[in-house]
This record gives sequence, structure tokens and C-alpha cells, in this order.
Amino acid sequence: MSRFSEPPSETFRRLNDSLAFDRRLAHFDVQQSRAHVAMLASQGIIAEEDRDQLEKALTQVEDELRSGTFPFADGDEDIHMAVERRVTELAGRAGGRLHTARSRNDQVATDMAMFVRQAALDAEAACLELAETMIDQADRHLDWPMPGYTHLQRAQPVYLSHHLLAYTWMLLRDAGRFRAVLAGTAALPLGAGALAGVNFDTDRSQVAAALGFAGVAENSIDAVSNRDFVLDYLAAATTCATHLSRLGAEIVLWSSEEFGFCEVSDAWASGSSIMPQKKNPDAAELLRAKAPRVSSHLTGFAGVLHGLPLTYNKDMQEDKEHLFDAVDTLELTLAAARGMMQTIRFDRERLSAAAEDEFLAATDVADLLVKRGLPFREAHGVVAGLVRKALSEGKTLSQLTVAELHEASDLLDEGFYELLQERGWLESKVSAGGTSLAMVRRQIEQARKRVEEARSGR
Amino acid sequence: MSRFSEPPSETFRRLNDSLAFDRRLAHFDVQQSRAHVAMLASQGIIAEEDRDQLEKALTQVEDELRSGTFPFADGDEDIHMAVERRVTELAGRAGGRLHTARSRNDQVATDMAMFVRQAALDAEAACLELAETMIDQADRHLDWPMPGYTHLQRAQPVYLSHHLLAYTWMLLRDAGRFRAVLAGTAALPLGAGALAGVNFDTDRSQVAAALGFAGVAENSIDAVSNRDFVLDYLAAATTCATHLSRLGAEIVLWSSEEFGFCEVSDAWASGSSIMPQKKNPDAAELLRAKAPRVSSHLTGFAGVLHGLPLTYNKDMQEDKEHLFDAVDTLELTLAAARGMMQTIRFDRERLSAAAEDEFLAATDVADLLVKRGLPFREAHGVVAGLVRKALSEGKTLSQLTVAELHEASDLLDEGFYELLQERGWLESKVSAGGTSLAMVRRQIEQARKRVEEARSGR
Amino acid sequence: MSRFSEPPSETFRRLNDSLAFDRRLAHFDVQQSRAHVAMLASQGIIAEEDRDQLEKALTQVEDELRSGTFPFADGDEDIHMAVERRVTELAGRAGGRLHTARSRNDQVATDMAMFVRQAALDAEAACLELAETMIDQADRHLDWPMPGYTHLQRAQPVYLSHHLLAYTWMLLRDAGRFRAVLAGTAALPLGAGALAGVNFDTDRSQVAAALGFAGVAENSIDAVSNRDFVLDYLAAATTCATHLSRLGAEIVLWSSEEFGFCEVSDAWASGSSIMPQKKNPDAAELLRAKAPRVSSHLTGFAGVLHGLPLTYNKDMQEDKEHLFDAVDTLELTLAAARGMMQTIRFDRERLSAAAEDEFLAATDVADLLVKRGLPFREAHGVVAGLVRKALSEGKTLSQLTVAELHEASDLLDEGFYELLQERGWLESKVSAGGTSLAMVRRQIEQARKRVEEARSGR
Amino acid sequence: MSRFSEPPSETFRRLNDSLAFDRRLAHFDVQQSRAHVAMLASQGIIAEEDRDQLEKALTQVEDELRSGTFPFADGDEDIHMAVERRVTELAGRAGGRLHTARSRNDQVATDMAMFVRQAALDAEAACLELAETMIDQADRHLDWPMPGYTHLQRAQPVYLSHHLLAYTWMLLRDAGRFRAVLAGTAALPLGAGALAGVNFDTDRSQVAAALGFAGVAENSIDAVSNRDFVLDYLAAATTCATHLSRLGAEIVLWSSEEFGFCEVSDAWASGSSIMPQKKNPDAAELLRAKAPRVSSHLTGFAGVLHGLPLTYNKDMQEDKEHLFDAVDTLELTLAAARGMMQTIRFDRERLSAAAEDEFLAATDVADLLVKRGLPFREAHGVVAGLVRKALSEGKTLSQLTVAELHEASDLLDEGFYELLQERGWLESKVSAGGTSLAMVRRQIEQARKRVEEARSGR
Repeated sequence: MSRFSEPPSETFRRLNDSLAFDRRLAHFDVQQSRAHVAMLASQGIIAEEDRDQLEKALTQVEDELRSGTFPFADGDEDIHMAVERRVTELAGRAGGRLHTARSRNDQVATDMAMFVRQAALDAEAACLELAETMIDQADRHLDWPMPGYTHLQRAQPVYLSHHLLAYTWMLLRDAGRFRAVLAGTAALPLGAGALAGVNFDTDRSQVAAALGFAGVAENSIDAVSNRDFVLDYLAAATTCATHLSRLGAEIVLWSSEEFGFCEVSDAWASGSSIMPQKKNPDAAELLRAKAPRVSSHLTGFAGVLHGLPLTYNKDMQEDKEHLFDAVDTLELTLAAARGMMQTIRFDRERLSAAAEDEFLAATDVADLLVKRGLPFREAHGVVAGLVRKALSEGKTLSQLTVAELHEASDLLDEGFYELLQERGWLESKVSAGGTSLAMVRRQIEQARKRVEEARSGR
Repeated sequence: MSRFSEPPSETFRRLNDSLAFDRRLAHFDVQQSRAHVAMLASQGIIAEEDRDQLEKALTQVEDELRSGTFPFADGDEDIHMAVERRVTELAGRAGGRLHTARSRNDQVATDMAMFVRQAALDAEAACLELAETMIDQADRHLDWPMPGYTHLQRAQPVYLSHHLLAYTWMLLRDAGRFRAVLAGTAALPLGAGALAGVNFDTDRSQVAAALGFAGVAENSIDAVSNRDFVLDYLAAATTCATHLSRLGAEIVLWSSEEFGFCEVSDAWASGSSIMPQKKNPDAAELLRAKAPRVSSHLTGFAGVLHGLPLTYNKDMQEDKEHLFDAVDTLELTLAAARGMMQTIRFDRERLSAAAEDEFLAATDVADLLVKRGLPFREAHGVVAGLVRKALSEGKTLSQLTVAELHEASDLLDEGFYELLQERGWLESKVSAGGTSLAMVRRQIEQARKRVEEARSGR
Repeated sequence: MSRFSEPPSETFRRLNDSLAFDRRLAHFDVQQSRAHVAMLASQGIIAEEDRDQLEKALTQVEDELRSGTFPFADGDEDIHMAVERRVTELAGRAGGRLHTARSRNDQVATDMAMFVRQAALDAEAACLELAETMIDQADRHLDWPMPGYTHLQRAQPVYLSHHLLAYTWMLLRDAGRFRAVLAGTAALPLGAGALAGVNFDTDRSQVAAALGFAGVAENSIDAVSNRDFVLDYLAAATTCATHLSRLGAEIVLWSSEEFGFCEVSDAWASGSSIMPQKKNPDAAELLRAKAPRVSSHLTGFAGVLHGLPLTYNKDMQEDKEHLFDAVDTLELTLAAARGMMQTIRFDRERLSAAAEDEFLAATDVADLLVKRGLPFREAHGVVAGLVRKALSEGKTLSQLTVAELHEASDLLDEGFYELLQERGWLESKVSAGGTSLAMVRRQIEQARKRVEEARSGR
Repeated sequence: MSRFSEPPSETFRRLNDSLAFDRRLAHFDVQQSRAHVAMLASQGIIAEEDRDQLEKALTQVEDELRSGTFPFADGDEDIHMAVERRVTELAGRAGGRLHTARSRNDQVATDMAMFVRQAALDAEAACLELAETMIDQADRHLDWPMPGYTHLQRAQPVYLSHHLLAYTWMLLRDAGRFRAVLAGTAALPLGAGALAGVNFDTDRSQVAAALGFAGVAENSIDAVSNRDFVLDYLAAATTCATHLSRLGAEIVLWSSEEFGFCEVSDAWASGSSIMPQKKNPDAAELLRAKAPRVSSHLTGFAGVLHGLPLTYNKDMQEDKEHLFDAVDTLELTLAAARGMMQTIRFDRERLSAAAEDEFLAATDVADLLVKRGLPFREAHGVVAGLVRKALSEGKTLSQLTVAELHEASDLLDEGFYELLQERGWLESKVSAGGTSLAMVRRQIEQARKRVEEARSGR
């Protein structure tokens, strides 16, 4: 088939052949060939009887692929060659017409765009499912106080529901990001030929419509050089994996004996080969561990494209392994996050005990002084002094005497003790988006609505 | 102001302080404080006279910053502290009220969102300008034939205009990507407080409206933990920088004596310290070189966020240097690409001579056979045989005899020589998005329209 | 000086000029010029009086640089040009002889190799200092029990000294890695000229000896293309920064109220702008945060070199910013780690209370059974059963009755309670490298010896 | 065997199980178990008859693994469990003693260290083989002139041999780097137990000796936390892959019609699915493409370790896929580079024609002036003026008249034309490491010697 007289070296075949990984494009490849054949016939480029034979052969190929009986042959370098070879075995000479008016370059770009589109839709759906799981868990733990942290230091108390919902909003943004990936896959590459367009009067719009593309790529050179959509997916996946790694890291942390805030169910944990008492939150650790892997696929593939002259270069074959592993990793971690979060058990007592740390009220005390007229910056200084005093004497805030309070500020009186006793520090956060129950309830409603909207593609 | 008794170590200050780089947030910080103060007053949280004093001080701070007379002080750890300190110097006790109902955590998230929004808009505009430069150059070199390449091997001839326009479409997608970054900056963090919301009845929507945010972040924990928008910008920048690196690489290549397709103007080139004859396309090389830098900022910052428990952690301070350098790099490379492309000179003769290589017609010959009834795959084989024959005998295709043609296929006749002679290989690419002149003209129109639409925000 | 007729564009200057960052090479540049000039004269390539004038001028340049009075001029693109210009101002026509028999390409490679060598030696020294600090702290906390963790779950008790020493061994390896970087800087690039060698009978060995290189680069093309040593440094820095990030992460964790194992001194912590009680371990967080930054410089610069044809290309100018920021970051984090660890306070009670968790003895119980003849895998199963029973009944291990023990294994008797009571779980780890006191003492001795050996270059 | 009551979730199994990839550690795992068992028996920790049974079982396991008949079971999570399970099937109760005095944590660290050691030795050998191939090709093309490039502009002529040898020196450094990786694998982790050492009087030195380790890890916590050696390998691989990518990029470039310097053999090239004339240098493109993949494994795995508390965490399981793919990629690209370079054909005429470009003599002309007394910087200016003049008038240098020469400098005379005619520009590069034939011959000798020294481990 080529102008070559020498067969490929075995090492070259190992380096060059992509069938081992690109076979997962098979379904898209056949779909695309169907649409291409239909167009060729309706434009009169191939005869109707050729079309019929090709369609029949493609149907059989699809069946064989689905049932796992597709006979791969030794010389199949990639999935496209495998399919065309098989079609030719089945359709005879007509098989040789399948590749009319297209090239491997526009063909593989089209397969990849279709793959990315599907992967992005799957990821969007999985993000929304996990978002919903987090809402359900928020609902179930609505008024469970826990400490909120900054710098991993207890800062202000929040409800567990509020904390869990933070992930819902991340996931909603992730879903939006995957939805936005679709825009980059909207222009059909097929019909660009090798790089310059083709010598036939094709109707690319017909093919685009058949395959679910919004339109056709306007420049044939760009069409075969473009892998932006792979980078788009990898970028969305990186951010999403980063969110999951933060979730994983928190569950690992909270599962420690020291925090003791939660316990993952046995189905999502491992034991130790040597320490019989161990229960390790492996699933959470792996959620944490996968983000660098996904993000390194992004850098890796951007690195491949860097400095690459137009149009198609073999380097671009690297798009597949980077993308496929990222897709698999993300699919698995999203599913695992969901399973783990659905069955996790939180420990109300441990959470609540930690939230009762009086020092968490320091901001509330400062705000009390603000409401009594002290500028915030001064109020902050007054309370910092009280904290310093209490810590150095090994006391809690409520163990300070009225005299000590007065010394710090004459605006302080019994209200100080009341504020500490009422433990209303959570309900005082009345601002929009704050942790007070009313706000969390509104937030849950809002989040459920957004999930629904996203599901219906709005 | 703190509960501490010991001053910070000098090494710690060097590690911790961010004023050296975050001072470029100054303008956004002041703008945000203005909106915050206005809201505090209209909600009755501070008195109107305090507001007036704060506004006056903020105006002066802005003037000082603009004129470069702002008096930074030794203890200023970051720009927020510097501004607040100065406001307090100017407004007296009222200054102490500025930080009421907000925290450094929501404040810095807000500054960063505003910065990213501006940077994305700037990048979008610069992409559109460069896209337009490429269209202008396409217009100017409409019908200049050149070889199109795959695998850096001459493949099929195209017009230079068509090749240049490929970059236009990349840049239009880049512009779209930067526009999409805005979505991630639409929710105002301010008002989230340290992490839990605030103890005051604030009106966050008022602040959002004043600062150009579409709404408010719905979850205070997420609001202060979220840097997705930084990743969004860096991802868009990575793809854009990768496009520019492909352009840079091509200009370097085309500037070589061997290609000789173009020459960058003296204003965009360098000489050699030792070789007097050298003219180096340094600007093009730097366009190429910057993509890994931008993309490594993305991995770097995603790495910082990886596994980070909620909410704010000091690690997140790293967002700034990664982002700022990426923004500066991109701004400079987009401007440089434009300047270089506006003044570059192409060499019509060299381009055209290279495009006349007869082997570039091989696909056209195969398609001729297809039109005469041969299945494409067989036609491909026939022509490959002719090419092999010609190469091994050191001939061009048109030097093959009719007898030799017949031996290869009886469908071949004088039409073969005509096809080679007419050199109509470019105009034969009549498919949509192809390189024929009619199609390129339509493409230019289409591209100009898209630039305009993008500029008006459609 | 060049063949150009047009001045550089302002944007090009901004993109191209490197003086802003490469001025830190100044010292090495002057040193190299001294050695070069001496060789030129001793080979008779320049006259002795020219040499004298050049040396005088170089001495003055060095003084000016040191005292900050060096007069940079507007047209200085880079430090090499600035130095040569100034030398020519001072030495008159002789200045024009400075660049004889060398090129910018071998000159800058030489500067960079010298810079890397110094940076690697500095980093090695800083690693050894920190290693020593960790040993000192181990000495001071020799027999303080604490829980050892796997998967962040308490696993087996160890001594704090043993845990701190783990970092010593990492740092010793880091020091070794920085020492190994020197090997890559041993071959002098200078004398390679632009890429092909020079037209003069130079004595490169003389220059090498003068500048502390072990020999000369054997291939002039490789000499100017080579930046391996930059990658070497960045790789060593990545591993070192990763170690520091693990240390930082642990200190953050241990500083939490939940762990409560340690408190960084006020000099290495920050307060909060809004929460008066907060003491945030910022230095530890920044140790953690810097690793991705360093590692992204490595990927970034490897990305620049990827696919770059030989020999020098302007892209290679990117080596500087990646390297310099990595060097600064590492220097600062190593110093900060040392300062923080020297002044940190550990809480003996909290550590010890956590270490007394009886479940940490599970492996010891299993090993008791092994010593009584049970295969380890069966012993592990028996103890896992006991743990499950205890947990499900809310008991500690020692609250299980003898009857319950017998039910699990007839090899269990009162020895079980003794083992739990003796709390000899630490001292039972008698194997080499284990946590028993004798072993830790030996380890400290060993580690001190290794630090000394490393310091003396062995 | 664990304390759990619930079976693992199917999704968790998919996420957690590592058998699919860690089975390639099987050989090392068995080897290690042999050494462990021998030591346990010689220390009296297990009986001699148990040892005999275990050894017999391990021998059979090894045979089964080698012959592909090893019966993997459904519950095998990883290779370690698979081997232990099978040993227990074969050896009965004695199998339960295999895991005495060790843990999965030290076991897997040991397997990985052994794997890295082997991979580094393999990579070293492959680098040396490729280095030798490059020397052989240099020998074969010793005096073939070609242009040397900087900034991809012709700069000065060199011999093809000299250019090819540049890669030899890179590869020699690579070999040295892989050799240096061994240092990081010299300390045996086994015997560290889970993290704290073990309760048995083991003899780790015996095991170390048996497995080829130089000594034992001195700190059990570090032993199980340490994956530095994986980073070491990945760093060496990154630099090596970057070198190969530069080679690949040059071959792609030189294979273009425009350069026409070489042609890869048919066995290392591909055709086109649509363009019959195409011969694409796919192998060279893939050499170029693989560097970002390898380097992204380094960032990816460094990212995994970043911020990870000691000791073992499940995240560290990610070491395997990153490492294995890097090892496979490197092995394949080194072999491919060798095969491709052994069979590549260079085109003497095209190379030489390009090298005769008179402008390449500009530095020699300047140096002529220097030898006649003009300071280099002035000489450079004179020649730049001549070049500008020639270019603007469309002349070559030798077409300039004597009058024109005099106008530029009165030091110029007929010697100018002689210098241009003699084309001695290559042989004038007499400095050490330069391109003159004598120097290249010396270089080849030197390089062969270094290969031999490296092979014998010196």
C-alpha cells in the first residue's frame, strides 16, 4: 500500500503502533464511517450499491466489536486500519472506497473529538451525582456543629452540612467546566482531508449533523492540527481532581484517631498486612493521590504540542494515552468519592466537642465590642490580649474574671460570659452564604436547583 | 495586634511577606474597600461620618498609589495591611472600622477574582488583535502557494493565506476560552468573612453589583477556599501559549536558509556577538520558549492546591506569583507575536518553488483514478508504485512514460500529464474549509465576522 | 555592531532583554573574563599591555558591581554586554579585544555552570545544617514516645527522636544529591566559541584550572547546547523541596488542636486579621507549599529544551528565571525550616498520651503468638479478631477477659496483660534501624558522623 | 484476616488493587522472600524445616511465574498477596510464617528499590549502546562538512561527525546519571517492618548482602517513607528523554525536503493513508514526543509525595504506574533511536552544498582582522558591514571588490578572497573540542574510551 520496499522494524512497530490503546475509539470510528459513507453516496461520489455494501459491512464490524469477536489481524497498526481492513474483507472492492475523500488525519481528529465529547458528558453527570450525594449528606447532618479551620487551626464553628456543601459548589463548577468542554468539540474536522481539504464536492454539514457536531471546522489546516479540546478536557479534569484530592485529604485527616470526626465504611477501607488493629482510609488516600496524575497528563500533552509545526505530526498520537488515563482515573475517583461519601459515618460527639472550644468565639467577642462602638481593629486587639492572658494562665476565656475583662476594655461586662455560654456563634453568622441554619437551608435548596438545571443542560 | 509576644524572625518575614508581589493588587483592593465601606454604611453597620472619612482616605490612598507616592512602611507584610495602615493614618480611629465584617481571607479572594477578570479580558482583547493581524496578513498573501506539511514532509500545496488563517481560528478559540474564564469569577467572595460568614447583617449583593460581580458566592467556606478561577486562567493561558509556540516554531523554521520562506524584520531579530552575518529570529524563539513556562505555572499551582484541607491555608499565597508571571508572559508574547507578524516579509519565490514539487500532486492523481472508477485504496496503491518508480530512477512524475503509466494502471493516460502541468492542485480543494481561493475568501469573511462578534461580547 | 539597519522594537526589547535577571551572574562573568584574558595573553593571542589594561578595567568593574555603583546603560541587553561595554569605556581599544576567541554562547554556558556549582554547594551546606538541627532536636527528645502512623492512622509507637531523625537521612541524601550536581558542571564550556571551536590556539585547560573546572568540554557543539547541569540542580531541588514539604505538612498537622503535639514559636507564626485567638503555622505551610513551585521549574525548563535542535537557541535563555527562582526558594525554605525547627516546642504529655493507645500493641501481641509457635499470618488473624471484638464492645484490649482470650487462641494467657501493661512496645523494636533507644542512640552517632563526612567532602 | 466485617466495594477494588501493574515486581518479590526466609532460619526465628518448605514453594512460584502458569486468584489485591497466598497453598502452615518480621511497607519498598536498580542498569547499558552507535556513525562520516546552526541559522561549518558526537557526550552523561541512581538504592528497606522496626532479632545485613544492597536503611521510618530513588530514576530519565527528543527533532528537520540532509530507512518510517508519495519519519517524531511524557511522570510523582506525612500512605502506590511507564518509554525510545541511527542515510552532497555558504566564513574573516591587529569587537563591526553590503546588493562575499573591502578596512586585501576560497573554515577550529579533523579524531578516541570505562563501571 505504501511506496516502501522494506518492512517496519519490530522495535519501530512497538513504538509506533497504537492499536493497544486506540481500540477504544472503535465505536466512534465506525459511527463516523457510517456518516461518511452516507454522505459520499448522497453526493454521488460513490455508488449506492457501494454504500449498501459498506453499510452492511460496517454493521457487522460494529456487532463484532460489541460482542468481542472482531478479528484483529497481525498487521493492524491502529484501530482505523483494523476497521478498514475488516470492512474490505467483508465488502470486497467496495471496501476500498471507504477512505475516499478523507484522510487518517481528519478521521482521527474526529474520533478524538467524539470521544472527548462523550467523556465530558460522562464526567459532568458524575460530578452532578457526587454533588447530589454531598447535598444528601448535608441534609442528613444539617445542624451538626464542628470547628471550621483556617491554616488547619480551629477558627470558627460551622455546621458539618455547611462544610460538605462547599464541595457541592466545587462540583457544580466542575460540571459547568465539563459542559464548557463541549464548545471546543463543536466543529467537525472530517472533510479536511490530510490538511488541505479534498478534491471532491463533499457535504460536510450533512456529516456534522449526523454525528452531532454543531458545524464544520472552517480551516482544514487547523482542523487536523487542533487538539485544543483534549487540553480543555484535561484542564477541567485537573481542577476536578484537585477538588477530589482536597476532599480525600480531609477524610484522611478526619479519620485519624486525633480528629476522630468520621469513619469510612469497611467497604472503602483496607487493613494492614502486619498490624491487626489498623483500618486505613485507602479510598480517601487515593482520591488525594490522583490529582497530580491527572494534572501531569495536562502538562505532558501540552508539552507534546509545544513548538510543533502545523499540521499533523506523529507526536500528536500521544494525545490518546494521556487522555484515556485521565478519563479513566477521573471516572473511577468520582465514583469512589460517591460510594465512600454515601457510606461514611460521622461522629456527632467528637465533632461537637471540638466545636465547643471557647477560643472559637473570639471573633464573636470582638464583634460584640464593635457593636458597642469600638472600631474593629481595636476590638481585635482587646480580644487578642484576653486570649494571650488566658493561654498564658492556662485558663479558658470564661474563666477570666470581670476585673480582668474590665482591665482589657470597659465595654466588656457580663455579656461576655453570656455570649460564651449561649454558644450562638454559629447562628450569629447571618450573612448570605454564612453558616447559620437558615442560610444553610437556603443553600441546600439553591444547590438542588442548580443540580437540576445542570442536568437539563441549562 | 496579635496574641504574640515575640516578633517574627527575619527569615520568616522574607518567606512570608507578599508585598513585593501583591502590591499589584492595590487598585482592586482599594476599589473593593470603597464598595465595602459604602455597604457597611448603608446597612447601618458603621456611621455615615465614618464612611465619609474612610472614603476620603481611600481616595487619597488611590491617588498616592497612582502617582507612586504611597508611603510603604517597614512592617507592611502585604498590600492589604499597607492600605489599611495608611487609611488608619489618614482617617484616624475610623480607619479601625474598615475591616469590620470582612476578613483577609474573603478580601484577598475578591482581589484575586477581580484581577483574574481583568487579566482575562485583556488576554481576550490581545488574542482578537492578533487574530486580526493574521487575517490582514492572509488578505495580503491570499494566493501565494506554498507546500502544506504533515510530519514536516511536504504533503499538499496550500495558500499561505490558508496557513496563516489556521492561527486565526486558534486565537478565536483562545479568546473564547478567556471569555469563559469570566464565568468562574462571577460570584463575589467578599462577605464570607474568615470562613463562616459574618456576625453582621451585610448586603453582599450591593457590593457585588458595585464591583461588577454577577452574584455572591453561596457558601462562605467555598468562597475563601476557591481559587478555581486562577486555574481557569492558567489553563486558557497554557493553550494560548501553546498556539503561540507553534507559531514561533514555524517562523524559526521558515527563517532558516533551508526553508527561506520568510524574514523577520530587523526590529524583531538579534545579531550575534561573534558571527557578523547572523540574523537570529529571537522573538520567534521566545514565543516558542514561553509555553512550558506558562504551563508549568498551571501544574505548579494545581500542585499547591492538591490535598489541601479547606478553607484558607497560607499555601494559597502561592497563587499570586504563578498567576502574575503567567499574565505578564502572555501579555508580552501576544504583543510580540503581533508586532513580529505585522512586519514579517514572506518570500513569494521560495514559497512557490517549494510548492511546485510534483510529488505534492500524488493525492490528486489518486483522486483522478477514483473519479475514473478505481476504489480509493487501490488508486493509492497505484500512485505509490509510480512514486516509488520515479524516486528509484531519479525522475519526476512527469518524466514517467505513458508505457510506464499503463503498466501501473490502464486508467492512466495523457490526463496524467495535464493534471501535473495545470498545477490546479490547490484549486481542486473545493470542499468547505479547503484551500481553494473561493473557500479562503469565504473563510476570511467568516473570520472577520467572528472577531467582531467576539469584540462585542457575543 | 550588527548588520541591522533598524533598531529593535520596544516590545521586543522587553521580551528579549535579560539584564533584569541575569545581572546576578555578574560576579561569575567578571571572574571568567579575568581567566580568559590571562590565557589569551599567555598564549600570545593578545599583548601583555592589553592584558594589563583589561585586568585593571575588570578589577574596577568588580569593585563597582560590589559597591553597587556599576553604571548600567540604557542599551545593555544583558550582563555580558554591560560588562564588556564598561570594560571598553575603561580600557579603551583594548576593551575590544576581550571577546577574542570566545562567544556569547560559551560565555553564558560557563557563567551558568559556575552559578550552578555555587548554588549546589550552598544547598548542600544548608541541607547539612538542617540535618544537624534535626539531630540536635532528636538528642533533646530522645525518649519521648509518640505514635508512629501509616495512612495517618496510629500504627506503632516510636520515639520522637526516631521520627525527627527520619528527616536527617532524607537531608543527608539531599546533600549527596547536590554534591553529585557538581559532576555535571566539571567540564568547562569556555573555548567552544559559538559552536565549532575557535580559530586561535587557546589553552582551555589553563582557564579550566583558574576557574575550578576539572577539565574542558570535549565537544564544542555539546558545550554550548548543554544545560544538563541546570536540570540536575532542579531535580535535586525538587526532591529536597518535597522532603521539606513533608516536614511542613507534619508540623501543620501536629500544630492542630486535635494533634497538639507541638507549637511553633511566635517568631515563625502569624496571627489572623479577624480571629484574635489564631496562631497560624505559616512557615510550615509555606514549606509545604513550595515543593510544586520548585518541581514545576524542572518540568518547565525540561519543556523548553524538549525538541530543541542543537546548538544554542534563544529559548535557552529561559534557564535563568527557572533556576534563579528555584535557588532562592530552596535557600529560603531550608533556612526557614532550620529556624522553625530550632525553636519549636513539643508537648511531651500530648505525645505520650497518644502513644499509650493500647491498640498500638496489636503487632506485639501477634508477635507474642509467633514466638509461641503460631505462624504469623494466623497470629495476625487471632489478634484482628480480638481487636474487632474489643471495638464492637467499646473495650480496650486489656478489658478483654481471659476467657475471651482463650476463645481466640489457647496460646494466649496472662502474658497478654503483662505485655499491654509493660508498654515495652518501643523497646521491643530491637532490629537494626528500629525505634528502641539503643538503636536510636547508635543512629544519632551514625548520623553525626555522616554529616561530618559530608562536610569534609567525603 | 482483617478486623473488617464488610467486603470491599467493587469500585474500591478497582481503585485500590494494584495487581494489574505491580505483577511485574513478581520476580523481585520472590527473590526477596528467599533471602528473608534464609535469614529468619539462620537467626532461629523460624525452624529449618519451615525454611525448607518455604524455599521449595518459592522455587515453584518462581517457575510458575516464569512459565506463565502462576494461578492468580480472584482476591489477589497485589502481587505480594498473590505470592504469599500461593506459597501458603503450596507450603501449608509454613506459608503463614513467611511474613514474620516484615511488613508490606518494607517489602514493597524493597521490591521497588530492586526494580529501580535493574531499570537504571538497563538504561545505562542502552545509553552506552546508543553512544557507541553515534561514535560509529561519526567514524563513518568523519569529514563530511555541514553547516552548524545557532538559532537554527547557519552559523559556522562543522563536520557531521562532530555534530553526531555531541549526542555521544550527552548519552555518556546520561549513563553516568543512571549509574548515580544506584546510590539511592543502596540501603535495604527490608527489616524496617511497618515503620518502627521489628520485634525479632533479625540480621538485616545478611539479607542486604544476599540481595545486592550495600547496607541497610538506618532509620525504619525513613525506610518505608522513602521513594527518593524513584524520583532519581525519573529525573535521569527526563534528561535522557530530553536529549533523545532533541535528536528526534533534528532528524525530523533534516528529513524535510528543504534540509534534505538525511533519510531514515523504510524500516523506521511510515507512509500516508491518503498521500502516496509520503515517507514520514515517525520514529524520529516519537522520539521527540516522548520527553514530555517522561518528565510529566516526574512532576506527577513528586506531586504525589508533596505534603505527605510520614510514613507509608496509600498515595505512594502511585509510584508504580508513573515509574513503569517511564521505564518502558525510555527503553523503547533508546532502542528505537539506536535502530534508526544505525540505518539512517545521510546525503553528502546536500550537507556539503549547505556548508559552502560563504557567509559561514564571516567569523573567520573577523578573526583574520584580529590577527592583523584589530580588536575583535571592531573586526566584528567591519565584517558585519561587509555582510550588510553584500546582502543588500544581492552578492556573495567574494563578489565584493577590493575597493569595497578597503573602504571597510585597510587591513583587508587579497587574503580575504583566499580565505573564502580555501574553505579552510573547518580546519581553522583548532582549539580543544573544536571541529577540526584532528580534534574530532581525538574526540572519537576519547569517547570510545569513556564508553569502555563506563561499561566496566569505572
